[in-house]
Amino acid sequence: MLTLYDHPRSGNCHKVRLFLSMLRLPYESVFIDVPNGVNREPFFTAINPLQQIPVLVDGDYTIQDSQAILLYLAHRHAPDWAGNGAREIADIAQWLSFAANEIGNSLQPARLYYLLGEEIDIAAAQAKSLRALKILDAHLTRHPWLAAGRPTIADLACFPYVGLAREGRMPLDDFPHVLDWISRIVALDGYVTMPGLPPPPATPDRAGA
Amino acid sequence: MLTLYDHPRSGNCHKVRLFLSMLRLPYESVFIDVPNGVNREPFFTAINPLQQIPVLVDGDYTIQDSQAILLYLAHRHAPDWAGNGAREIADIAQWLSFAANEIGNSLQPARLYYLLGEEIDIAAAQAKSLRALKILDAHLTRHPWLAAGRPTIADLACFPYVGLAREGRMPLDDFPHVLDWISRIVALDGYVTMPGLPPPPATPDRAGA
Repeated sequence: MLTLYDHPRSGNCHKVRLFLSMLRLPYESVFIDVPNGVNREPFFTAINPLQQIPVLVDGDYTIQDSQAILLYLAHRHAPDWAGNGAREIADIAQWLSFAANEIGNSLQPARLYYLLGEEIDIAAAQAKSLRALKILDAHLTRHPWLAAGRPTIADLACFPYVGLAREGRMPLDDFPHVLDWISRIVALDGYVTMPGLPPPPATPDRAGA
Repeated sequence: MLTLYDHPRSGNCHKVRLFLSMLRLPYESVFIDVPNGVNREPFFTAINPLQQIPVLVDGDYTIQDSQAILLYLAHRHAPDWAGNGAREIADIAQWLSFAANEIGNSLQPARLYYLLGEEIDIAAAQAKSLRALKILDAHLTRHPWLAAGRPTIADLACFPYVGLAREGRMPLDDFPHVLDWISRIVALDGYVTMPGLPPPPATPDRAGA
């Protein structure tokens, strides 16, 4: 059984929940109360010295960092999602870095400012968020998916904090290609939601008709 | 021929120079004068919308982001350096994220503060730098290399800004396991230096004796 150290409002955890659901892998979710500092307690610091969620435990193997967890799950269960050949692998890696840097230092802290009152330079975070959304929108003008012409872990890595951009008071509706991409992700088989993200598409009523 | 958009004082570019040298791959270095804003000129923005170096061009393929470039070169020329199997690949990915986040948001800006007078919260950057060095030192107490028990792109991704830590006025000498790891990297075949990093080991005088 897989164990995910998890928080329901964490976008980084949601990247992993999305992929686990798409891969139809059952897992146990262990709630880590990050706003109340449980991630800094000794038991959790022993699991991850970086004191961050998500952490995934697969038998005797423990892995931290949402991007690394996506790579691990892809290589174990669905290698196509991690790219075939040097170019696809590198294109995907660029977007994993974009998720960690450009999104992780902009949309992610801007959201925490409004949700949890984190003390940050909100003007700087919103300026960076706007830049990240513009770069993403420009890329999606020419491509349906971020890399490899199909859904990959690049999309899953970038999606949550972009989809949650309104919680950081960013004008997501000004970016039509980003909105279209969000719709495509929501339509993927196994998509699951979290507070602030779109619900899965309505399914036909199997009991009726 | 490979082309590297490059700056001699950039640690992110040095990651790529190190690996190109270890792989014995010839390349052309194109100087991008980042402190004078050449990276924000239209010709370079067309090459990389993120306006960052390094960028590597291999024929018709252009790739940005130092970590992604290391992955690309490994998959093209030396796959062992990128890890074999899901666990090694994921362990390496964790350290690539550590290089991008923990190091990229601490030791890298602390150095720029002193080298270029960048306006940042230097106390916060140095506190984060200390935390990153402690985590690295603790890991290296138990492991000679960051992942997979051998030199990989994880080491090359983390090395430059750690090796340059004194330029951010960080007490590198307080971390003996990090110093030992630096010595092991310096001893690798193909190691090249840059201002602020140790020189390659002296080679026996082939002409003499």
